[in-house]
Parts: sequence; structure tokens; C-alpha cells
Amino acid sequence: MRIAVIGYGGVGKAFIKLLANKKQDLENQGINFTVNYILSSSGGIYDSKGIDCKEVIEFSNKENILANYHKGGSSELNFSKLIEKKDVDVLIELTPTNKDTGEPGMTYIKDALKKGINVITGNKGPILLAYNELNTLAKQHNVQLAVGCTVGGALPSINGGLIDMAGSEILSIEGILNGTTNFILKEMEDNNSTYKQALEKAQNLGIAETDPTLDVEGWDTASKILILTNVLMNQNKTLKDVDVEGITKLTIQDINNAKIEGQRYKLIGKSKKANGNIHLQVKLKKISSNDMLFNVDGKNKAIRYVSDTLGELVIFGGASGVTPAAASILRDLINIYRGYHFS
Amino acid sequence: MRIAVIGYGGVGKAFIKLLANKKQDLENQGINFTVNYILSSSGGIYDSKGIDCKEVIEFSNKENILANYHKGGSSELNFSKLIEKKDVDVLIELTPTNKDTGEPGMTYIKDALKKGINVITGNKGPILLAYNELNTLAKQHNVQLAVGCTVGGALPSINGGLIDMAGSEILSIEGILNGTTNFILKEMEDNNSTYKQALEKAQNLGIAETDPTLDVEGWDTASKILILTNVLMNQNKTLKDVDVEGITKLTIQDINNAKIEGQRYKLIGKSKKANGNIHLQVKLKKISSNDMLFNVDGKNKAIRYVSDTLGELVIFGGASGVTPAAASILRDLINIYRGYHFS
Repeated sequence: MRIAVIGYGGVGKAFIKLLANKKQDLENQGINFTVNYILSSSGGIYDSKGIDCKEVIEFSNKENILANYHKGGSSELNFSKLIEKKDVDVLIELTPTNKDTGEPGMTYIKDALKKGINVITGNKGPILLAYNELNTLAKQHNVQLAVGCTVGGALPSINGGLIDMAGSEILSIEGILNGTTNFILKEMEDNNSTYKQALEKAQNLGIAETDPTLDVEGWDTASKILILTNVLMNQNKTLKDVDVEGITKLTIQDINNAKIEGQRYKLIGKSKKANGNIHLQVKLKKISSNDMLFNVDGKNKAIRYVSDTLGELVIFGGASGVTPAAASILRDLINIYRGYHFS
Repeated sequence: MRIAVIGYGGVGKAFIKLLANKKQDLENQGINFTVNYILSSSGGIYDSKGIDCKEVIEFSNKENILANYHKGGSSELNFSKLIEKKDVDVLIELTPTNKDTGEPGMTYIKDALKKGINVITGNKGPILLAYNELNTLAKQHNVQLAVGCTVGGALPSINGGLIDMAGSEILSIEGILNGTTNFILKEMEDNNSTYKQALEKAQNLGIAETDPTLDVEGWDTASKILILTNVLMNQNKTLKDVDVEGITKLTIQDINNAKIEGQRYKLIGKSKKANGNIHLQVKLKKISSNDMLFNVDGKNKAIRYVSDTLGELVIFGGASGVTPAAASILRDLINIYRGYHFS
């Protein structure tokens, strides 16, 4: 399979590195991937015979400008050239997320699908705004759109709902989907910290951003439960349909009262079918010690599906960082290679 | 897709019922399955245009002999006729398990694969004895062999390792895979029962068999960890390679000592790569309260994979009974329909 990677930030670079490291393993399994394009916002690299990923990683450990790479690097190279040539099977779309317009990823994804190129994306923006439209495009052009990396990275949340629950009807989805808030809650619990103290610690450790609003007010969780709902329950909801609560008002007193009852607060994203409707919410909930979600601590994530015929499924995991995120892109790539029809 | 079902016991019947119930749902998703054969040891039903599953279920609620069914029922019908006609795409093999010879399922699976028919089985015998040989046959004839139902039924243990961990190397597999022993352990813990009392309760409830040896001596868990290892780690191990311990020697005192330490005993099947070898074992282990396996109670099951690039994945679930087992067959069927290459 011939691959183009667009977006050479943390995950893009980790993905190229992963392909270099896994080259032998994959070849032993009979899987051959060639990377024909690596594109950034200032040009990129093209090699019709396949770029040497190991060499590119060594190069980009020293230098940032892909266009300066000696074999096929060019500042003139861009997405339009790729679309003209159409000489790849899969586009790995890893450009920066924009949750208002989805651009530039939105255009890249649409154009690729229209040209009959499969797309794997780790970019939440376009999927949040237009999953249904994009998935319909994929179907129309008989190619795949895989979005596993957009919800929980290494946590196989989309796979879980789509493949592990295949043939059953998902009645509810419930998850701890945001590592930052989960870390803050554990910090408050373990060290009797106030919300403010715990947030500061998370910021100092680089776990929370300087402006933590999207995480702590529940919007990141809302985006994720929204994507899961649209992908797995065949809906076309928007963020406006989600009833969202954050963790900022939680006090030490609340945490301690819960402790006395043997419970822990968790920020839960939930989507539930009832009377023909879907109810979407993000809420702080007290979880009992015999619940599988009780032990989902710190930066960990988990998702619970309840179905009609396969019962309950809880998936726990999702290592954090750019390597596991890149590994989740590789997972989608291999599953497309193995013939799976996501769209 | 044209389907043949061989074996019309509990799971076979539940599967036909499930197809009848899900017919509309599946058609709404654009999925059309026709059941052309239902075979039992004393004949069966054939309809080249597709058997009416709902009607067959109504019929077999009253009468046991499929051959007496008015549309296409015949006592002359058998597997050889199917193999001669070769007019199906998938064989669902649900005949009784024989762990010594794998028969009659072994022959059915081999013959079907050789004729280019995909196979889904819920039969542990052949998979335990000859997974590698059968999978190689499937590859040679460019068809799929799906065995998800053989380990944990509704628990997506094979899917989890194969599809959710795709592209990563699985370093260890660890699971609570036997509902009967897990029920007995909880019973001892909750009610301060002796092993013998707890076993009797399980037998009275129909959870343990009259001869519970395979479960309580760890052999069922051993079979499951063995299948997972051979399928997911590309091995060719046998039961002789598994170091097996049961739960029969555990005392109330042991359980209470563990309780004081905040721990619970669980029967764990484990497979681990170390120094180029694979170590397989079934052991009683004390699990701490912060471990995700701590809350896997009663008849529930769970599996934990540790990988190089996707971190840790714990899957919990697997409703018990013939309907969830049938639903796991349907899951494999839909994933084959969606193009997934298991082999």
C-alpha cells in the first residue's frame, strides 16, 4: 500500500518513526507499506519508490524543514500535487485541529475521498463537524474513512463499538475520555488538594494546558462522546446537543463525602438511547468501588458499551503520548490493509 | 452471503433465532444473509432460496427433528451433500466439542476450507488441537477462519488481540476466562463458604457441571489461554505446554488472609513472552484492589493484553449463555461480511 502523510508534527513524526521501527515486523507478516509523500505546511518529500523512513527520522532529528531533505525534498510540494498525481492508496491526515472550520484537514479529507483515496485521520475537527458527510463521501467512492485516533488514541473506542460489538445494537456509551480531568480528580482525592492546586500541578507537569478550559469544562469529553455517538449510533448530532458539565466547581468536601461512601468522582461522557431519542451528556458522577470504571485512574481512559445481544463491554487502556497515538493510526492502516470496511 | 449452519444444539438454535430477530436491522444496514442449510446429526433443512428462520424456530419449539420440517426438511441431508453442491459462502460450525479428536467438527472445517468456504466455529476442540493447520488451510484457499466464540463467547478476546492491537506486538496475555471458578471464588469470599460448599451451590444453580474437573482444575482456562496464544502470538503450543493449577485446594483461611490485605484470589490464565520463549500458565493469584481485574466478579470474564506500542488493554464483559454465544458468531459473520481478513 502506498501512503501519504500530511502533517509532520508530533504524531506525524512518531508515525514515520513507528513505520521505520516496525518495517521488519510488518514485512515478516507479509505487509508492505511504502510512504510516497510526507507533507508539511512548507513543502515536503516525495519519492515514487518509497521514502526511507529511518533516514527521514535521522534527518528531522537535526533539521525541521522537510523540503531540505536531499532525496525528493521540495518546498514546491503540496497537497494539490498529490491530488493531481493520485499515486497513493491511503492519506494519513494529521494536520492541526480546528474545531470551528475543520480546516485545512476538512478539504484534504474531502478531496482525497473524492479521488478514491482511503483516509485515516487523527484530526478531531473535521470528524466532529462533518463525520456523516465525510463517511457518505467515502461510501460513494468505495473507500474507507478511519477515525480511531480521534477518540482516546490508543484506546480502541471506535474499534470496540464498530468491530467488537458488530451485529448488536449499542444502547448506551459511557466513558472516562479525558486524561487531564481524570488526573486532577485523582490528585484532589489522593492529596486532599483543592481543584485549583490540582490544576496547577497538572499544568506544571504539562498534563493540563495553560488555558485548560476545553478539558476542565468538559468540552473535550463532549467532543469525544459526540464522535462516538455519530460513528457508532449512526447519528448526526452536534456539540449543541450535548448537556455539558465540567469539574471546576468540585470541592474537597465533595470528594471526601464521596470517599466516606466508598465512591470516587469521575467525569463521565454518556450517550443513551431512550424512547427513540439519544441523550448526550457530560457529567461528574460518583462511581462505586464495584464498578469497572472505579479503577480508571489518572491519565487512563475507559469506555463502556451496553448492547442488546452482546451484553456489556468495558475497554480500558489508551496509553498517552504521540507514540500510542501513532500506533492507533497504524492500527487503522493495518485493519484497512486486512480488508476491513469502516465506511 | 449464503450460510450453512451445522449443529443445531443450544447455540445453533440461538443463532437461527438471532438471525430471525435481527433480519430487519441487518437489512436496514444493507446486509443480506440467507441460511441455505441447517444440519443436525439426523438430517436437516435445505432451501436454495433461503430458509425462513422465524418459521424454523416456531417449528423447532414444538418438534426436535429438523428433517420433519415441511419446506426442504430431509433425513437424507448431510454435510457431504453440502460439500458436493458447494452452494454456500460461510459454514457456521457448532457441533459438539471433542477435545481428543476434534471430530466431527475437524473434518467439517477442513473440508469446507478446502472447498473455498469461509468457516466460523464455536467449537473449541478443533481449534485447540489444530488451529495452525486450519488457519494455514484457510490462507491457502483464500478464505477466512473465525474462532471468536471459542474463547469467552461474547467477550471479544480474539478480536481484541487481533484487531484492536493490530500493528503492535503483544507481549503478554492475562485473563479471567472461566466463569464457573470465578463464581465459586466469589461465593467463598462473600459467604465464607468452603470450596466444597461453594461448588455445590454452583452445581445446584447449573453453573458448574456434575463433573466439574475441567473447570475447577484449570483445564478450561488452559484451553482458552492456549487458543489465544496460538492465534495472537502465532504459536503452535499444546495443552502439555501449559503449567496448570486449579482452585480446589484453596481454603477459607487463604481467602480471609487475602481479604485482610485488601486482595482477592482469581484464577488467571497467562501467556508471556520472555527471552524468545512463551511461558503459559494457569495459576491462582492474589489481585489487588487497584487492579482492573479485581472487580471481575462472578460469571464475568476479562482479558488483559500488554503490547509494545499500544500499551495495556483490558477488555471486560462477555455475557453468559447461548444468546451471547450466538451473538459472537454473528459478530464474526458481520466482520467477514465487512471484508476483514482473519486468516
